[in-house]
Amino acid sequence: MAERIPHPHISTTALVPLFRLDRASGLSLQDQIRRSLINAVESGVLPMGAKLPSSRKLADQLGVSRNTTLLSYQTLISDGHLISRERSGVFVATNAQRANARTMQVVSSRSGATVAQASTRLLQPDISRTQSKFPSDWQSYRYPFLEGKYDRSLFPLHEWREASRLALAVQEVETWSVDTGEADDPALIEEIRTKLLPRRGIVARPDELLITAGDQQALHLVTRLFASHQTVAGVEEPGMPEIRALFAGRNARMIHLPVDDEGLIVSEELEGCDIVHVTPSRQRPTAVTMSAARRTALLESAERNDFIIVEDDFECELNYLENPLPALRATDGGNRVVYVASLSKVLAPGVGLGFMVAAPEVIAAARRLRSLTTGRPSPNNQRAAAFFLSLGHYDTMLRRFNQVCEHRLIALRDALNHYRPMSIAIAPVRGGTTYWVRGSPHLQTQKLVEATQARGVLIEPADHYFAASDAPTNMFRLGITSLPVERIREGIAALSDAIHAVATEPASANSPTPYLTGELIKSRLSNTVLHYKTVYGEPCTIILKPDGEMSGRAGTAGEDVDVGRWWVEGDMWFRKWDRWAFGEVLGFRVAITGNDLSWLDESGRVMDSAVISLSDI
Amino acid sequence: MAERIPHPHISTTALVPLFRLDRASGLSLQDQIRRSLINAVESGVLPMGAKLPSSRKLADQLGVSRNTTLLSYQTLISDGHLISRERSGVFVATNAQRANARTMQVVSSRSGATVAQASTRLLQPDISRTQSKFPSDWQSYRYPFLEGKYDRSLFPLHEWREASRLALAVQEVETWSVDTGEADDPALIEEIRTKLLPRRGIVARPDELLITAGDQQALHLVTRLFASHQTVAGVEEPGMPEIRALFAGRNARMIHLPVDDEGLIVSEELEGCDIVHVTPSRQRPTAVTMSAARRTALLESAERNDFIIVEDDFECELNYLENPLPALRATDGGNRVVYVASLSKVLAPGVGLGFMVAAPEVIAAARRLRSLTTGRPSPNNQRAAAFFLSLGHYDTMLRRFNQVCEHRLIALRDALNHYRPMSIAIAPVRGGTTYWVRGSPHLQTQKLVEATQARGVLIEPADHYFAASDAPTNMFRLGITSLPVERIREGIAALSDAIHAVATEPASANSPTPYLTGELIKSRLSNTVLHYKTVYGEPCTIILKPDGEMSGRAGTAGEDVDVGRWWVEGDMWFRKWDRWAFGEVLGFRVAITGNDLSWLDESGRVMDSAVISLSDI
Repeated sequence: MAERIPHPHISTTALVPLFRLDRASGLSLQDQIRRSLINAVESGVLPMGAKLPSSRKLADQLGVSRNTTLLSYQTLISDGHLISRERSGVFVATNAQRANARTMQVVSSRSGATVAQASTRLLQPDISRTQSKFPSDWQSYRYPFLEGKYDRSLFPLHEWREASRLALAVQEVETWSVDTGEADDPALIEEIRTKLLPRRGIVARPDELLITAGDQQALHLVTRLFASHQTVAGVEEPGMPEIRALFAGRNARMIHLPVDDEGLIVSEELEGCDIVHVTPSRQRPTAVTMSAARRTALLESAERNDFIIVEDDFECELNYLENPLPALRATDGGNRVVYVASLSKVLAPGVGLGFMVAAPEVIAAARRLRSLTTGRPSPNNQRAAAFFLSLGHYDTMLRRFNQVCEHRLIALRDALNHYRPMSIAIAPVRGGTTYWVRGSPHLQTQKLVEATQARGVLIEPADHYFAASDAPTNMFRLGITSLPVERIREGIAALSDAIHAVATEPASANSPTPYLTGELIKSRLSNTVLHYKTVYGEPCTIILKPDGEMSGRAGTAGEDVDVGRWWVEGDMWFRKWDRWAFGEVLGFRVAITGNDLSWLDESGRVMDSAVISLSDI
Repeated sequence: MAERIPHPHISTTALVPLFRLDRASGLSLQDQIRRSLINAVESGVLPMGAKLPSSRKLADQLGVSRNTTLLSYQTLISDGHLISRERSGVFVATNAQRANARTMQVVSSRSGATVAQASTRLLQPDISRTQSKFPSDWQSYRYPFLEGKYDRSLFPLHEWREASRLALAVQEVETWSVDTGEADDPALIEEIRTKLLPRRGIVARPDELLITAGDQQALHLVTRLFASHQTVAGVEEPGMPEIRALFAGRNARMIHLPVDDEGLIVSEELEGCDIVHVTPSRQRPTAVTMSAARRTALLESAERNDFIIVEDDFECELNYLENPLPALRATDGGNRVVYVASLSKVLAPGVGLGFMVAAPEVIAAARRLRSLTTGRPSPNNQRAAAFFLSLGHYDTMLRRFNQVCEHRLIALRDALNHYRPMSIAIAPVRGGTTYWVRGSPHLQTQKLVEATQARGVLIEPADHYFAASDAPTNMFRLGITSLPVERIREGIAALSDAIHAVATEPASANSPTPYLTGELIKSRLSNTVLHYKTVYGEPCTIILKPDGEMSGRAGTAGEDVDVGRWWVEGDMWFRKWDRWAFGEVLGFRVAITGNDLSWLDESGRVMDSAVISLSDI
C-alpha cells in the first residue's frame, strides 16, 4: 500500500485553512501563524521535508503583511522547526534536524490543559475487561495459541476475491449502490435461509432474518431490545465479558449461571430470569457442547418461567468431531429463542458478517435499531457473501477449515497428553478452535503468561471470562487458528517448560516418596495394569508384560489401542509406543505408594500418575 | 443476480434436520412429520416444485416405519400441499396447485399463539419517528424529490470498482483479512487526516481519528460515551429525529434549541446544557449554514457554560455555492468539539463510511465501544476507500457531484420561483442537496403528500423533524439526488398543481377584489415599478414601460438582471422574459388594492403578489 499511495502533498491553498487567525486574540498574528505551523508539523499534516510556500505568497493568502509571515518563518527556522535552503525555499525539518528544536513558549492548542476537555466528561462503561490482552505484535511470536487471530492459510483468499469481483460487476453495483435504505440483500437472505439454517434445523421466513456486522452487533441489538434496569439477565459463568458488558450497559441485573462439561447447568437459579444468554453449540470460553438433556431442560425451564433465550451459535458449523445437535431455535419452543450466528469464522474474519433469526416483530424492531445505531452491513459485502455461498465456496471452505482445525486440535490434544505438564486437564470438545485448560490449583496464570512469552508462546489468560472476583487463577485457553500444525508440539513443549518454571510447589515436597531403583522397577511393574486418564479426561489402561511387551487401550469405549515396549536402564523406566506419544522413547523415575504410581522426571518432579494393580491375565 | 444463483436445492440429508420428532409428544409421529413438512413448504425452505425423497428413504433417515412417512405424504397429497406424479415421485405443490389446499388441523409451530413469545417482551424505544415514510417503490415515481435516495448517475461506479479491485489484490487482502482486531486502516486514516481534514481547517493526529460506519454510528458512540440520565442535551429544533432517539435511548433530558436562517440560535437556553448537537455546515433539515457570528457565539457559550459540542458535518464538502466556513473543531476551543462526518455522500451511498475526530482518550473509548456494539467498518471497504482517495477519485467525484447538484438545485430554485405555488418560501442555502420549503400557513402537508403521489411526485413531509407536538404542518423538503435535472421543472409544475388542489382557502374568498379588465390593465401598469421577493427570499424589482418593454433586477446586490416584454390580450396581462421564467409567455389576471398588486390565474387563485409604485424614471 505504502508504495502506491503517493507521498501526501499539501498545496498552498490547502495550507490556508490550517491558519485560524483571530485579530481580537491576545496573541500576535505572528505567534498565531507560528503556532498553526507547529501544530501542522507536529501532527504530521505537514510532512517532514515538505516545501512551504514563500513568505510573500503566504502573506497574500492570509491577508497579513509580509513582515509577519517572514518573522514567523525566521523564528521557526532559528528554533529548528523549519530549514531554509538557499535558492530553494523553506522546508519542514526532518526529525533528525529537529532533534534540538527549542520548545515553543506559546501554548499549543493541541497540548496541555485543553487537550482533554471532552475526555473529562467521558462516561466509563465497564468495557475494559472485554479487551483482549494479546500483544499487538502477536504475529512475531512463534507459538501464538490465540483464539480470534488467524494465520493466512485459513483465509479463503481466492474464493473471496472471486465472490467480491462478481459483486463488483456493473449491473451488481447498480443494484446495491443507490439504495441507502435498510433492507438486507435478498440474495444473501435466501442463501442463509435455504442453505445454512436447514442444517441447524431452523425454518425461517425472509422477515425472520436480519444480517448483522458479526455476532457482536446482533447481541448489542438484542440486549437493547430486551433488557432494561428492570430486567434479570442470566449469563454463563465463565462466560463472555462482552455479553456482561452489554447487559451492564442496559443496567440489567445479572445472574451468573455456572457451566460444567455438559454446558450451562439448568437449575432453579433460572426461575427469576427474564432473558438468558447461552452458547449451546460451543460454550464460550470452555468450548464444551451443551448436552441434549440440558437443552430440553433449559427449554422446559424457559416455558415454565417464561423467559427468552438468546442462542449464541457463533461456531455452529465447527462441530467436526461429533454430529452437531439441532439449534434450540429449531425446537417447538423455538419462538422463545432469538438465534444469533456468525459467518465470519469461515467466510472472512476481517469481513464481519453474521445474522439473527427471530419472530418478524423482533426482526423489524432490530432493523430500526440497527439503522439508528450503525446502518446495515455494507451491501457490497452482503452481495459478495451471497455469491460466496451460492458458488459453493462456503461449503468447500467450511470442510477445509474443519479439516485443518481437526488436524491441529488433535495435534494440540496429543501434545498436551504427551507432555502433561503438572496435571493439567482440558474440557471435552466436539470441535472448534480452542481448548480450555485447567492447571494445578497452585498455577498462577498471570505468572505463566510472562514465562510463556519469554519462550515465544502466547496463551490466553482466562480471568476476564469470570464475573466473580474470586475466580480461579489456574485457567487459560489455547487456540489453534493462528499457528501451523508443525509448530503445535514444539509450542506445547515450550509451554510445558514454562509451567514447570513457574511451579510454586517445591518439587521435593511434592514427591517425598523415594523412587524405585534398578531391578526393583522391573519386578514391581511386571504383570501389572496401570489405570489413568488422558489429559482430555478419557480412561486409559496400560498392561505391562514381564517380557517388555506393553499394550494400551484408551477412550470411553476403549476404541484407541496401541502396543509398545518397556525396559529399565539404570534407575530409569523407559517406554516406547508404536504410535502414541509420537512413537518416541521416553524415560522416567518411578515411585509407588500403595496403589499409586507416579512418574517423575530426573529432577524429581511428578510428571503423571496412575493407579497400579496386578494383571490377572 | 437471480439468474446466476442456482435454484435452491434441498438434498434428503439436508431435509432431515428439519424434522424434530419427539416420541414423548402428544402428537403422533405422522402428524409431527406432516407439520414439519408444512412448515418447510410455507417458509419456502422447501421451494415450490422441489422433489421430495421417497417415503421409504425418508423413513430410513428418520428411523420411523415406512407406513408413517407414507401416511404423512398421502394426507399432504390429498390436502393439496404435495403433488404425486406417477413414476416421478412426490413434489411440493406450486401456489396455483395449493390454492384450495385444506388448512391443517394440527397447530403449526410457526403460527398462532406461540409466534410472538419473544416479541411480547420487546422494549419499544422511541425510534418509530426516525423512519422515513418514503414508499419502498420510490424508483417507480417520475418525480422523487427525496433526500437520501440516489439516482445511478451520481454513483462513481467505475472509480469505486477500480479502488475495490486494488483493495482485492492478493497482497492487500493478506494485510486486511487476518487481523480481527479493532485498528482502522492506517492508509485511510492518513488520507483523511492529510487530505480531507486540512480543508476543514482541522489538524488531527492518527490517534484522534476513528473510522465509523457512516455518521450515524459515530453519533451512537458519542451519545453512549457522553450522555446518561443525568445529562442535559441540547438539540436543534427542527432537527434530526435520529439524534433525539439516541439521546432518548440514554434517558438524557433534551432542550430543543430553535433554528433560523443563520442556524442554531445561541441563547441563554444553552446554559444548562452538558452536550449540544449541532449541524453547522448544513443544518438538518433546513439546509441553512450557521453564520460565522453564531459559530463564535456558540463556542464562547460552550467555554462559559462548560459544555461539549458534537459537530455533525455530514455534508461538509457540499457547500459549492459559497465558500465553506471552517469547522468548529478547527478553532482554538476545538477540543470541546467532537467532530463527526461522512464520506458516503460522495464515495458510495451504499458503502456507509464516516469518521470522527476527538481527543485521543475519547477516540480510545469510542473504539472500545465500537468493538462491543458492532466492530470496525469492513477492512476491505476501508482499504478501497483509501485507494479511492489516494487515486484522486474523491476530489474528482466531489467536483462532479457538486456540479450536478448545483445544476439541479438551481433548476429547482428557478422552477419554484416560476410556479410560486401559493406563496411558498425556501430557506437560503450554500449548497447541498435539499430545499426546506414553507408553504402557506393553511397548507396541510399530509394532504399534500397524497395529492403529489397521485401526480407522480414524492416530497418529504417535515413533521418528524420537529420534537414539539404543535409543530407547523406546512413544511416539507425537496431533494435533488434522485431525479435528473430534466424532470425538475415538470415535477415542480405537478407539485404546484397539487398544492392548488389541496388549498383549503376558497379561491374567491382570497381574492374578493375584482380583477382589472382590458385597457385598464395597460393604463394602471404602465410606468410602474413592482417590488417583490423571489421564492428564495431575495429582492426583485421589475420596471414596466408604456411601450411594453420590461426590465428586472434580482438578488441582494441586484446582480441578476433580465429584460422582456409585456402586453394585454382581452382581460389578461402577459409577459415574456428573455431568460427568466424559462423565457416563456405567461398570462395572468391582475388585481390592485392600494399598493398591493396580485397576479391571479383564470380561476381567480392568487399566484403571486407585489408592491406597485409609479416609476420615477
